[in-house]
Amino acid sequence: MVLTVTLNAALDVTYEVADLRVGGSNRVERVRLCPGGKGVNAARVLHRRGVAVHATGFVGGHAGELLEELLDGLGIIHRFVQIAGETRQTVTVVAQSAAGEATVFNEPGPVLRHDEWNAFVSQFDELCAGVRVVVLAGSLPPGAPPDAYAQLVGRARAADADSIVDAAGPALRHAVSARPTVVKANAEELLHSLGCPSVETGLDELMAAGIAMGVVTLGADGLGAATKQRRLRALPALPVQGNATGAGDACTAALAEALAGGRPWEEALREAVALSAAAVAAPVAGDFDEAVFARVRDTARVVAL
Amino acid sequence: MVLTVTLNAALDVTYEVADLRVGGSNRVERVRLCPGGKGVNAARVLHRRGVAVHATGFVGGHAGELLEELLDGLGIIHRFVQIAGETRQTVTVVAQSAAGEATVFNEPGPVLRHDEWNAFVSQFDELCAGVRVVVLAGSLPPGAPPDAYAQLVGRARAADADSIVDAAGPALRHAVSARPTVVKANAEELLHSLGCPSVETGLDELMAAGIAMGVVTLGADGLGAATKQRRLRALPALPVQGNATGAGDACTAALAEALAGGRPWEEALREAVALSAAAVAAPVAGDFDEAVFARVRDTARVVAL
Repeated sequence: MVLTVTLNAALDVTYEVADLRVGGSNRVERVRLCPGGKGVNAARVLHRRGVAVHATGFVGGHAGELLEELLDGLGIIHRFVQIAGETRQTVTVVAQSAAGEATVFNEPGPVLRHDEWNAFVSQFDELCAGVRVVVLAGSLPPGAPPDAYAQLVGRARAADADSIVDAAGPALRHAVSARPTVVKANAEELLHSLGCPSVETGLDELMAAGIAMGVVTLGADGLGAATKQRRLRALPALPVQGNATGAGDACTAALAEALAGGRPWEEALREAVALSAAAVAAPVAGDFDEAVFARVRDTARVVAL
Repeated sequence: MVLTVTLNAALDVTYEVADLRVGGSNRVERVRLCPGGKGVNAARVLHRRGVAVHATGFVGGHAGELLEELLDGLGIIHRFVQIAGETRQTVTVVAQSAAGEATVFNEPGPVLRHDEWNAFVSQFDELCAGVRVVVLAGSLPPGAPPDAYAQLVGRARAADADSIVDAAGPALRHAVSARPTVVKANAEELLHSLGCPSVETGLDELMAAGIAMGVVTLGADGLGAATKQRRLRALPALPVQGNATGAGDACTAALAEALAGGRPWEEALREAVALSAAAVAAPVAGDFDEAVFARVRDTARVVAL
């Protein structure tokens, strides 16, 4: 069982327009609604992969109700903590005239109250029962303690669960000090969050902190990774074109699946690079292309450096 | 009492961003939610003017619930018909870097079912009791009969109420044939809807159809109008800068207020041009600037041509 935590969940709204006219009025041709936020996206990928997964985090207001209904529609089991604020939405405008170029508007999210955080922590310990891997992914909502992920990593360990953190900034720095099993970040976020001059030194720091595996996403160049024993690179053999939104969440999902299944790190990386590429080939975050997944998994190279 | 009808009501979402980056990720600095759609905007202006007003139309789903709660928060009495679809939202992105330039995304709205339209018509007759003026404003939702406004104009007349129509396209053409008291349109929409070569011939057509007053909005040039007796022009003496969204709805509200109060057409036009300018000076649709209203009303020229 995998438990995904999305403290700043979002209702993802996608607008298809013929052409994005800045300063003008744009007729939306098609509206798509998806439950979103990085942890929720990972849960959707895991569910489609057939992995037992529960989703938690915070939801509030009318957008929160809609998010839960959308998860129900997908058959994903969830237990979110209700908050007084209204769940944020993210609006992605896809312009057909610009080959599907995506322009994204990210709302900051509702301000979390202290008692809401405490309610979450109490429930979290219950939800960890029987869980192999906890996924902690995405930004913290305003008002959350900066060491929120660090607290949850410690509680997951106390419940005998592994943890994967996908975060940036202070949330990532705090989380690293709590020693999650896996840290996954994109290259830019890792360097910026840890103040490191290179991906190599960033991975060094993760290893020095006692993390079992550090994974850095490198866009079309695949993944860089470090374990206690060695450095690894996973390279897709084929270029994949499409929408990169959600590729990182698919990578996180693959790492969670491999960790829950006790599979070796090399295999985890191969599946992660394949599932990332398969997510790029799918039009919305949280989804992936089965054929691309199979093709990239069978041809990707995982090499020890 | 004024009754505003908004068949395609919307939840208006305004995003303030520092800079609109097309093809990039935009952090939303501030989110504003307003109940919207042209009829609802007119209701908000009327309510702020101290005019007794009820709002009706269709709402559905979570966005519809939020729209009703926002009206409650403003103290505006409403009785919308519930539909199965989800109320649309409009997203307006205001970029600080471009002097508040607004980029608007309009969702098409939920598809109305035949039984939902019938439920509305039944309720409409009840709601017309004691009403002086019915305002019919904005686009029709997909699935509504193209003569929806024409039907409601006839029913309003049967209930001894005057009617004002603010529409475009086939909805306007049908409405004109049912002879509402006032037709208000912007110049471009009027010419396009009626297939007329000029504003003058458009007003001629409205008069030939037996409409008591036709009003055409001309942007910064004020209003053109026709009654059975003569042609009028209302000119603001001062230029006003700001966001033109909602100016037409404020114009409609002023015409409804004057009609409900039995005031002469010249006075109605003077207030309409002043309230439009005052709406331009306010940042969101449905609101207006009191000081600008007073100043433009006292200085505007209303001339017979």
